Amino acid sequence: VPELDTWRTGISFVEPGRIVVRGYELPDLVGRATFGELVYLLVTGRYPTSKQGRMAEAVLVALADHGVHAPSVLATRIAASAGSPLQASVAAGIAAVGDHHGGALAGAMQMLEGIRSAGPHDATMRRAAELRVEEALRDGTRLPGFGHPYHRPDPRAQALHRVVNQLGCSGAATSALGLVTESLSASGRALMPNVDGAAAGVLLDIGVEATIGRGFFLVARCAGLVVHAIEEQQRERPFRTIAPEHVTYDGPDPKTRASPPCGANSH
Amino acid sequence: VPELDTWRTGISFVEPGRIVVRGYELPDLVGRATFGELVYLLVTGRYPTSKQGRMAEAVLVALADHGVHAPSVLATRIAASAGSPLQASVAAGIAAVGDHHGGALAGAMQMLEGIRSAGPHDATMRRAAELRVEEALRDGTRLPGFGHPYHRPDPRAQALHRVVNQLGCSGAATSALGLVTESLSASGRALMPNVDGAAAGVLLDIGVEATIGRGFFLVARCAGLVVHAIEEQQRERPFRTIAPEHVTYDGPDPKTRASPPCGANSH
Amino acid sequence: VPELDTWRTGISFVEPGRIVVRGYELPDLVGRATFGELVYLLVTGRYPTSKQGRMAEAVLVALADHGVHAPSVLATRIAASAGSPLQASVAAGIAAVGDHHGGALAGAMQMLEGIRSAGPHDATMRRAAELRVEEALRDGTRLPGFGHPYHRPDPRAQALHRVVNQLGCSGAATSALGLVTESLSASGRALMPNVDGAAAGVLLDIGVEATIGRGFFLVARCAGLVVHAIEEQQRERPFRTIAPEHVTYDGPDPKTRASPPCGANSH
Amino acid sequence: VPELDTWRTGISFVEPGRIVVRGYELPDLVGRATFGELVYLLVTGRYPTSKQGRMAEAVLVALADHGVHAPSVLATRIAASAGSPLQASVAAGIAAVGDHHGGALAGAMQMLEGIRSAGPHDATMRRAAELRVEEALRDGTRLPGFGHPYHRPDPRAQALHRVVNQLGCSGAATSALGLVTESLSASGRALMPNVDGAAAGVLLDIGVEATIGRGFFLVARCAGLVVHAIEEQQRERPFRTIAPEHVTYDGPDPKTRASPPCGANSH
Repeated sequence: VPELDTWRTGISFVEPGRIVVRGYELPDLVGRATFGELVYLLVTGRYPTSKQGRMAEAVLVALADHGVHAPSVLATRIAASAGSPLQASVAAGIAAVGDHHGGALAGAMQMLEGIRSAGPHDATMRRAAELRVEEALRDGTRLPGFGHPYHRPDPRAQALHRVVNQLGCSGAATSALGLVTESLSASGRALMPNVDGAAAGVLLDIGVEATIGRGFFLVARCAGLVVHAIEEQQRERPFRTIAPEHVTYDGPDPKTRASPPCGANSH
Repeated sequence: VPELDTWRTGISFVEPGRIVVRGYELPDLVGRATFGELVYLLVTGRYPTSKQGRMAEAVLVALADHGVHAPSVLATRIAASAGSPLQASVAAGIAAVGDHHGGALAGAMQMLEGIRSAGPHDATMRRAAELRVEEALRDGTRLPGFGHPYHRPDPRAQALHRVVNQLGCSGAATSALGLVTESLSASGRALMPNVDGAAAGVLLDIGVEATIGRGFFLVARCAGLVVHAIEEQQRERPFRTIAPEHVTYDGPDPKTRASPPCGANSH
Repeated sequence: VPELDTWRTGISFVEPGRIVVRGYELPDLVGRATFGELVYLLVTGRYPTSKQGRMAEAVLVALADHGVHAPSVLATRIAASAGSPLQASVAAGIAAVGDHHGGALAGAMQMLEGIRSAGPHDATMRRAAELRVEEALRDGTRLPGFGHPYHRPDPRAQALHRVVNQLGCSGAATSALGLVTESLSASGRALMPNVDGAAAGVLLDIGVEATIGRGFFLVARCAGLVVHAIEEQQRERPFRTIAPEHVTYDGPDPKTRASPPCGANSH
Repeated sequence: VPELDTWRTGISFVEPGRIVVRGYELPDLVGRATFGELVYLLVTGRYPTSKQGRMAEAVLVALADHGVHAPSVLATRIAASAGSPLQASVAAGIAAVGDHHGGALAGAMQMLEGIRSAGPHDATMRRAAELRVEEALRDGTRLPGFGHPYHRPDPRAQALHRVVNQLGCSGAATSALGLVTESLSASGRALMPNVDGAAAGVLLDIGVEATIGRGFFLVARCAGLVVHAIEEQQRERPFRTIAPEHVTYDGPDPKTRASPPCGANSH
């Protein structure tokens, strides 16, 4: 059984007067690295090139907020409305990031990784993308990173691809994303990559592993959660709830229930 | 009672094909703004100047990680060790940011705001700083943003002050911090500002309000929590616990306890 | 600085083959104590009398669920809807218990404690209740434990008082609650105690301290959160959100915003 | 996309003056049902018989606390030590219940359900148990609900079996647990059921589904988390951390790292 008094870490090292992060003196990075560059260093263990750093920033910016609509923001604002402090409200929102919210980023990274690994030839990658699309259409499952309930297309995906092109740093994963899009189109589905799909391609192309995808989302969205919690605290009346007419009860009718057995309450 | 179907927000606006944040088209900011600049925009509602953005980045970098030692990281790694997924592990750590951890930043911002408001004259601010120090010494309370269990001085505070000087953007709050330091020294206490104190001065000087201080800490530290959770998942054996010999029980001796009353279990 | 390898507890003691809780062998309590009795033992350190145990059960039952309307349940169901697992969904709801939700229980306990301490004479307690009511009316603040957005009166408060009378265990705190009710009525306010107020009286009368009040609420409501999370997972489509027409944006108009400064994105 | 203004629930129904839970008037249950009976009603939708209720109580009592050793308690106490309020500290602990902590209960329920479904004949169930044990031994995986790092055997499992025998309510799932134990023994492994294994058998035998297993653990342990958080707040100095000598850093040596590229900080 691992104990609490034996900790091992390759992330950071602290001794009096000194803090080292992934082999760099943290104080040296203050004022030199942007936060996005530091996030890249933390998750990959490597200091980013200038382009890698700029792409990491672009992904973090694209994911930082999407309004009140996200389940994580709703959970955070409801907690704030109940009078819980900032950190507890943000924790409620972070806990509300799940497979259906933020999870598509990691799912799309896995999918693109699989297609990329069928390369390096275009033809074999294209075939892998077609097979993946056929599988989804046959099984009726969603392709992670494609489509959006509001946006057709998702302007954040377009923005990320603009930056990829400006910096000239498109790689095999972004190509794989394009191949999936083409394959969907050839199957008569005009689904476009959403922000998760575009970010998945970018992150893989700058060397971030799929297991870390959800981490980028958490760091980015944490910023949105913080400001939504503060806005709720400062501007809204407490205790958000729902009007009774918005609730349908379809459980058993009390009239059909016998009283609880007498024995139960006689103890 | 406020309902769930009436939401009002000044942060962001979403309609099909469009996402606006604080009055800016979010897609336009992708690739242009750094994440630190976006955080500044989100929390203050104003787009930062180049210097404000760089100071915001510097603060986020300084606060991003301090090793396994922080309670928030311990809570996160313990949750990850129990097999909870990434978002739940990070939520545990976010919930473990409290008045004694991360809270000093907001406390220091309030203190510096008070001293700054005694200005603009140096003499009146100095007097306010002296009074605040005298009060803390008399009451035996800690001055938020001063001192550190490991670091004397805290190298992150020094780094932030280096950047402040490089960019020439020292303001009244950073001056107030210096006045507190001098006043402590004059009282025979050689306490130096820690990272919370230095960040408090910087944030106030770039126009961030004290109520938002803890939010900066949460966003920054979220990055550390994410990588510590992933490292724990990937490298350590599950179920961290403590050895029995590290626990002292000082509750009642079972020998002195009567059995539970017979009546209690006869129902 | 307290370390992780030095733990002290008066709650429980574990050694191979043995678990002691508050001085009782836990295995001996399995099958003898009800869970409510164990909760009482854990929070007070004393084994309850039969009546204390039954009142503790009654309070836990009264607080266990109040439908989808509670902010904690909403946060939990939204997290479940986002695809987060059970423990993370329940954690989101627990974090959404705040001063405005669940907090009235502890607030009412403090208020009743204050009035009770003006006793033991009825006249002095009555005067304390009147002063407390006058203060609230003058300041326009809410009296914790009185009134409810849906229920007039709250049937759970009535049920708790019925049990108090059946068991003949009304005490000074429940009397204090009645004095506040009478004083309100004399002031022309027909506010009745809600479940928090009634539970506050009961808990104080069975010897639970005000600092522990919120704990009873958390344990009881945890049951509701668990079943709401499971119902959401099993019956509802994922990703609850809000329709755009339910959101009002009152932030800056993008047309009035200048573009982000060129300098910002030229790095 | 499901919206927030359309809620459907079979759990509870609230209208002015009325709260119905699973078809029972909640106020009628106050003072009649124990909390364990209510938990049973909430999770199964059926009012328990007296024996079912007593077994539910026994399981909740057995799981309520296991000292400071559990990861959930450690996360909760660390959050409390950081100065986070009660609900946030308990949320941190709830989020720290994962597959390796509390998860064995659901795992064991699934295993026993599988073996039970090979019945009703003893011989076919026994064969199913043997196959499951062989599979675990061959793959080197743990059998959920067997073995414990401290206890050999786990006294809570023994206590639950004592109550099962007293009440004469052993069923097929508890039999399946016994068959696994015998099959392990025949393979030369003297592993005994732990509290998760015993509780899994009991819960299945009283009609609780495997998907709900973790919910019982969460409700029960919530009680332990609450008292540990309060004890930490009331008795311990803030800010638990670890001594530097307990941390081993095995990341890159700063000496081997080049400075961050100049380009990175020149923007």
